[in-house]
Amino acid sequence: MTKKTSGFDLVLAERNDGTPKSRWLSEALREEIARGRLAAGTRLPATREMAAEYALSRGTVVNAFEQLKAEGYLEGSAGSGTFVSRTLPEELLEVRRPRSLKGQSAGRPPRSALLRLSSYGRRVELFRNFEIRPSRAFRANLPALELFPAALWAKVAAHRLRRVSMSLLLGCEPMGYRPLREAVAGYLGASRGVRCEPGQVAIVSGVQEALELVARLLLNPGDEACMESPGYPGAVSAFRAAGARVMPLSWKGGKLREAGLKGARLVYVTPGHQFPLGTAMSLAERLQLLDWSARSGAAILEDDYDSEFRYRGRPVPALQGLDRRGQVIYTGSFNKVLFPSLRLGYLVMPPELVERVEAAISIGNRHAPLLEQAVLADFVVEGHFGRHLRRMRQVYAERLGVLQESVAARLGGVLEITGIDAGLQTAAWLGRGLEGESAAAAAAKRGVEVTPLSRYCFRGTVREGLHLGFAAFEPKEIRAGVRELGVALEGLLRQ
Amino acid sequence: MTKKTSGFDLVLAERNDGTPKSRWLSEALREEIARGRLAAGTRLPATREMAAEYALSRGTVVNAFEQLKAEGYLEGSAGSGTFVSRTLPEELLEVRRPRSLKGQSAGRPPRSALLRLSSYGRRVELFRNFEIRPSRAFRANLPALELFPAALWAKVAAHRLRRVSMSLLLGCEPMGYRPLREAVAGYLGASRGVRCEPGQVAIVSGVQEALELVARLLLNPGDEACMESPGYPGAVSAFRAAGARVMPLSWKGGKLREAGLKGARLVYVTPGHQFPLGTAMSLAERLQLLDWSARSGAAILEDDYDSEFRYRGRPVPALQGLDRRGQVIYTGSFNKVLFPSLRLGYLVMPPELVERVEAAISIGNRHAPLLEQAVLADFVVEGHFGRHLRRMRQVYAERLGVLQESVAARLGGVLEITGIDAGLQTAAWLGRGLEGESAAAAAAKRGVEVTPLSRYCFRGTVREGLHLGFAAFEPKEIRAGVRELGVALEGLLRQ
Repeated sequence: MTKKTSGFDLVLAERNDGTPKSRWLSEALREEIARGRLAAGTRLPATREMAAEYALSRGTVVNAFEQLKAEGYLEGSAGSGTFVSRTLPEELLEVRRPRSLKGQSAGRPPRSALLRLSSYGRRVELFRNFEIRPSRAFRANLPALELFPAALWAKVAAHRLRRVSMSLLLGCEPMGYRPLREAVAGYLGASRGVRCEPGQVAIVSGVQEALELVARLLLNPGDEACMESPGYPGAVSAFRAAGARVMPLSWKGGKLREAGLKGARLVYVTPGHQFPLGTAMSLAERLQLLDWSARSGAAILEDDYDSEFRYRGRPVPALQGLDRRGQVIYTGSFNKVLFPSLRLGYLVMPPELVERVEAAISIGNRHAPLLEQAVLADFVVEGHFGRHLRRMRQVYAERLGVLQESVAARLGGVLEITGIDAGLQTAAWLGRGLEGESAAAAAAKRGVEVTPLSRYCFRGTVREGLHLGFAAFEPKEIRAGVRELGVALEGLLRQ
Repeated sequence: MTKKTSGFDLVLAERNDGTPKSRWLSEALREEIARGRLAAGTRLPATREMAAEYALSRGTVVNAFEQLKAEGYLEGSAGSGTFVSRTLPEELLEVRRPRSLKGQSAGRPPRSALLRLSSYGRRVELFRNFEIRPSRAFRANLPALELFPAALWAKVAAHRLRRVSMSLLLGCEPMGYRPLREAVAGYLGASRGVRCEPGQVAIVSGVQEALELVARLLLNPGDEACMESPGYPGAVSAFRAAGARVMPLSWKGGKLREAGLKGARLVYVTPGHQFPLGTAMSLAERLQLLDWSARSGAAILEDDYDSEFRYRGRPVPALQGLDRRGQVIYTGSFNKVLFPSLRLGYLVMPPELVERVEAAISIGNRHAPLLEQAVLADFVVEGHFGRHLRRMRQVYAERLGVLQESVAARLGGVLEITGIDAGLQTAAWLGRGLEGESAAAAAAKRGVEVTPLSRYCFRGTVREGLHLGFAAFEPKEIRAGVRELGVALEGLLRQ
């Protein structure tokens, strides 16, 4: 449908068959006006004339004109004729495509003449925490997704959706769905020694969001946040985004080096299973931390990220359970036990902080998605969560055993797995002068994914070693991975 | 099971039948130690002796002792005997309950000797955006939840869950599930005149989170953010939490009062349907805003919160579609069209901002829950979303009509509904000297929920009136509500 009107050269865009005629006409005219081909003040053909030219009904043309008048593109009336509006500024006439997304340098704030960023906006940096390539041995932080009972989850979800209530469609308090908060408080009390009432539990999307919330609520730009190095990079990112300086927390001969913590407002620790080294913090160390925190007034943020997976002995109770003064904020998540894209976790806080966290959530995402919370609560209360967890513990213990045996048999003296007994991954020390970075590069060439421990250091250095995930891989993948890793490391040793 | 050991008075807590014996014993001993009834250095009975006393197997006692040694509560060996650890500080011995959640004054930051809040932590205030009481006429911001096709949603969800892929369980990029971002870009382009590529769309939990993200990325403490008064209180909360001063944006005779915007870094508007007055911003006004923004370098945040629901004419295209310089950030949500507890919406941004938003999400919730995103994408792509929207548009148009007729018939001269033609609620002006606050109080006594428009003013005043939601109520509820409101208002007029 490309025609000239009688009054002037007007070439309208083709009509797509699916578009209603009146809408097509108003869009085509709007485009002509925006492109400047219909100048301000131009008189349009009469509706009758236009209808005939474009084989439209007159009503269609009238509708399109009325729409454009309502929007301000056209003006005039049936008697005096219809004109392109004179109030259109030059600016509208120049159609520019949005600037391309390409060609921006990664990791740097973009320069813009128009959008001025806040200090936070300039500071915040991408935490590259997603990976779209298929998983392969020994990617860390991955559970065995192929064993997740998706059909069972679907059944629980369908059951919940069939009897969904108006109130469940409507929303909940910022801190989350009360039955889930109760289930979390009960579960953490029984299995982790966490002491809390459901009112102290907030449902968040996971540990990362918990870190970010706590950082925002407790840290001012310029404040110090302390954590162990090597440590969890997502925490470094969250603290730096808050404008904090991230300083190392360290121990010497079992003693906390308090001098390093002098200015700290917040200390972040992973006592159940140090990230990435996998060690558990001893009771004596925990007590020192609590004692220091009581004297200094700094808060402790305990990230209990994967201590559900303990393969020997009962889990050591959480640091939070030893806290008698309300100094410890505790966080953990369901994402690793169930599936990472779930985005549900918890933040357990001292009573003083409840109102602040509630306020921060209320002006942000308002609350976590409610149907998902209800399905998860059902999954926990009906015992599926516990059963899945116990099953995964067995599977992961077996996989860790396979990794340990294979490495001992194939890589003795070259790679030594630390004596971990929990988690989804382990640290391993490199021997014979090998370095983590070159080892990881050589492994990648043989299709094996390992992370040098040094990459988790934001300060200082760590003994050369690798981070190896084992939970997501079947025994034969683990054995093949160790074999290929062996070839890679031996290649380095021969150089 | 309350017994004395032979060596000393040790009264252990009763064992719950469900608790494994070894776990019960270690927990009971830990509790005794923490309460100070087993003092540091105390020698425990031999495992054999203890087993006999408590009718346990010796292995059970050994396990419990080993666990407590691993945790640091006990020390010693089989040969030398087992002792309560000497490194326990006094602090651990005093069990205090966490401070009560009660007795805190609402709305004020709590005082704490220990947790020092950041400036943000002290600033942020609860935005009371949830309501647990059953809905009744004329609560605003509510869709007709009873008409939401929950069974259909469940079917789409079940279908998606049955064929769930590993990658869907794993996660996605911070900006969201690509097919949903594509569906959003397509939908907004076709129905709202928004010009964007899918790469410019971030999936967030809704408008509120979008406001909060933008406020954080663009506003420094002390900056000015401008918006109309009366306006959306969730925006005021988000901007104030960012430390911004919220200043009024106003018009005089169709002209933007630029003097009031001098210091503004960000202008927040609801051009499709002003909140709460319901008017649409004219093209001339939109162009003035864009022109001012281009000159001043301030960003415009367009909240297109419920313009899907337009009952007369086509929706006026979004301000974003007129933007040629990348000044406009656009947000809207699925929560009102589908159901509020869903928590999925979108933020459409100029290319310059993409990387910053991506970074902010990556260190926060990482990404919106993926299964929900996939189900929503299916719901949109399969046409259910469009069908539901069209159906709701008819229903709401009918309900608005009922409200307009009832008010005209019953309350002429006392209450006058503004000429709105979109949204889930409407403003109504009070006549004969009635005031919003007293009218709302009188209405509440008759079981009718209305909000005085004056409550939405953060600055200045507005003509006396009420905000009335109509979408969530059946015609007979609307008529009954108008009747009761009439009785309430007449009662005030007689006073």
